[in-house]
Amino acid sequence: MITSLEYAQQLDARDELASYRAAFIHDGDLIYMDGNSLGRLPRATVDRVGAAVEQEWGRDLIRGWHHGWYDAPQRIGDKIGGLLGAGPGQVLACDSTSTNLFKLTLAALALRPERRRIVSDTLNFPSDLYIIQGCIELLGGRHELVLAPANDGMHVELAALVDLIDEQTALVTLSHVAFKSGFLYDMAAVTARAHAVGALVLWDLSHSAGVVPIALDACDADLAVGCCYKYLNGGPGAPAYLYVRRELQEQARSPIWGWFGQRAPFAFGLEYQPAAGIDRFLAGTPPMLSLLAIEPGLDLLLAAGVERMREKSSRLTAYMIDLYDALLAPISYTLGTPREPDQRGAHVSVRHTEGYRINRALIEELDVLPDFREPDNIRLGLAPLTTSFADVWHTVERLRRVVDQRLYLRYPAERLTVT
Amino acid sequence: MITSLEYAQQLDARDELASYRAAFIHDGDLIYMDGNSLGRLPRATVDRVGAAVEQEWGRDLIRGWHHGWYDAPQRIGDKIGGLLGAGPGQVLACDSTSTNLFKLTLAALALRPERRRIVSDTLNFPSDLYIIQGCIELLGGRHELVLAPANDGMHVELAALVDLIDEQTALVTLSHVAFKSGFLYDMAAVTARAHAVGALVLWDLSHSAGVVPIALDACDADLAVGCCYKYLNGGPGAPAYLYVRRELQEQARSPIWGWFGQRAPFAFGLEYQPAAGIDRFLAGTPPMLSLLAIEPGLDLLLAAGVERMREKSSRLTAYMIDLYDALLAPISYTLGTPREPDQRGAHVSVRHTEGYRINRALIEELDVLPDFREPDNIRLGLAPLTTSFADVWHTVERLRRVVDQRLYLRYPAERLTVT
Repeated sequence: MITSLEYAQQLDARDELASYRAAFIHDGDLIYMDGNSLGRLPRATVDRVGAAVEQEWGRDLIRGWHHGWYDAPQRIGDKIGGLLGAGPGQVLACDSTSTNLFKLTLAALALRPERRRIVSDTLNFPSDLYIIQGCIELLGGRHELVLAPANDGMHVELAALVDLIDEQTALVTLSHVAFKSGFLYDMAAVTARAHAVGALVLWDLSHSAGVVPIALDACDADLAVGCCYKYLNGGPGAPAYLYVRRELQEQARSPIWGWFGQRAPFAFGLEYQPAAGIDRFLAGTPPMLSLLAIEPGLDLLLAAGVERMREKSSRLTAYMIDLYDALLAPISYTLGTPREPDQRGAHVSVRHTEGYRINRALIEELDVLPDFREPDNIRLGLAPLTTSFADVWHTVERLRRVVDQRLYLRYPAERLTVT
Repeated sequence: MITSLEYAQQLDARDELASYRAAFIHDGDLIYMDGNSLGRLPRATVDRVGAAVEQEWGRDLIRGWHHGWYDAPQRIGDKIGGLLGAGPGQVLACDSTSTNLFKLTLAALALRPERRRIVSDTLNFPSDLYIIQGCIELLGGRHELVLAPANDGMHVELAALVDLIDEQTALVTLSHVAFKSGFLYDMAAVTARAHAVGALVLWDLSHSAGVVPIALDACDADLAVGCCYKYLNGGPGAPAYLYVRRELQEQARSPIWGWFGQRAPFAFGLEYQPAAGIDRFLAGTPPMLSLLAIEPGLDLLLAAGVERMREKSSRLTAYMIDLYDALLAPISYTLGTPREPDQRGAHVSVRHTEGYRINRALIEELDVLPDFREPDNIRLGLAPLTTSFADVWHTVERLRRVVDQRLYLRYPAERLTVT
């Protein structure tokens, strides 16, 4: 019976990725449902960071730069590219997602100087929209940002999006998987429609990298950014990445002319010349400890393989939705994630008018750690290498218990401010 | 006798900061003269990073953000401010020096929209000039960058600089201490002259913070940036910092509208509104491991005190110049650093036509690690908490030996490319 714990345990017994769980630190009985905010710590990362601090910095000092530091943005970028369907020399690990989005947005607008429209949607991560708004302000307010509406707060219809993409459109920029609902775009279809009218496309892959097969090269995508601290298990605030399609690299320019993007940084010439290829999109000196911490997790993800992770991820989300139907829908939860398997990423949102208090009760007394997103979303991130089917079962059982037993009533409805 | 090792040892015996040396990792007999490229590892940082990885990330997971992560840019920024003569709420630890310089340059130019001139000098770190050039390009090429010439490659005369600062000048931006010669500007005098004609001033403090007393508030400085991986011992590529004078904060805007600079990031509204105060200059999620690694070194520097560090630093550089006069000037070295104590920072450059090969010989067979800067500078960084007078003596003795014994002839004059 699907609602029994034994059923979940049987699914775990047949899970061919189950052995990866031991490659990550697990402490106590916590059910961690927030691997899409901060992925778990790979055991190998503890040693990698320790060596970077004690041997490479402490002992080798400045010579550490010759032992895998200089080329870390490119080397780690290429590994990330292996998860994105991007061939070598097109991805850099560097800066934050926001700064990378800023760089690539301005690069894109400079490649389409006559066009004035930027298209996105209301499901996009708000910070991505802020960056676009800042770019528009910086360029004198001559561009317009138009947002495709979200059907039912969850999906964007392709037709509604395509309606906005016209001959005046310089750039279409979207989150591949939406941060709240988990809605997954058809990257190939959107990119083709944008290209049909000469627009460029910039994808934010923060919620899809590592869990959804991505084919940047095959889709002919132009630009992409994303973060490494979610499903890539790169650590808190890990440096982000950016992708620039090879054919665009020689025409495109970063607005931040930093010395790591200069052709010959140690010649110390007084005039900037951009480096060849993707390197020109580097800016300043990378935060090396945080950057090196990304690599062990990537090695695990590459070994597991994106196809196998997607296959398990799809089964995890389907199983959670089945349990939702059986146990949560009857007690006034609603589903905040698309039911169509090909339209969702790796997290499931369940909604409840008391979602905020339910979330607090789960964290504070039921040893479940989800994420709450206003106004009523409890977001459950299912990371294929670290989340078990039993974790899903326990989470749904406790979501039910919190409401059945009115445990959430102990918590105030007023939001705690996060500072 | 000043040229004897015993003399150096007597200076060390009387050094009241000598005990700080044990707070940093020292491995073997290496004489490290590159603390101004990458400062030594504080012992306390090993534990701090270990705890950040294993406890805060590994065990606390997303809850780590509530344990000193969110406010780390401000908290660590205020500590840096303690070294810069900047009161609380004006400094953030974030991003790279290049990105911070980019943000503040554009902020400054927006505050002086009618003015078209930017003044710097030829001693400035070339990457700083690249950033300015990129900002000019981004704004449509309407600004001009003019550079005060360097007298003898070492100093810039105040009069030569002031000649360039006119009523059309929006911004004066300079390295407080020059990366190659170690020339130190009079911050108060330059700032006053710029303000007299209504220009803003942006200081790069990378080579002065932690070793030279800085009085940003007292000088009425407008803006500043700097890196944390040199004398601040923050680790390879450590996040940088920026300073915006309190009175400018409400008018000034960062061009990168990231969510950490948004008024209410977790409300997830679709329109950007800048946070109050200095926080608006944050962009994306900070690289937390690298950021937290900065703090233990700052605590050591603050305990030692800038005045005491400057006092020792001045004695170290004076001693090195005395030894240079006695031992190196006679064998065709020249001095690349100002002799006037109030016109130099904490490093000393010695020049030699065979400087490149001498530098290699020192590194590869004489256990001295300096830094080479084209075309002929051997740069010797003297960090007051980790460099001893005996280190200075050994360095000069070996510089002499390399030339006396022609040891440098074993090395090719062709430059190794760093990639």
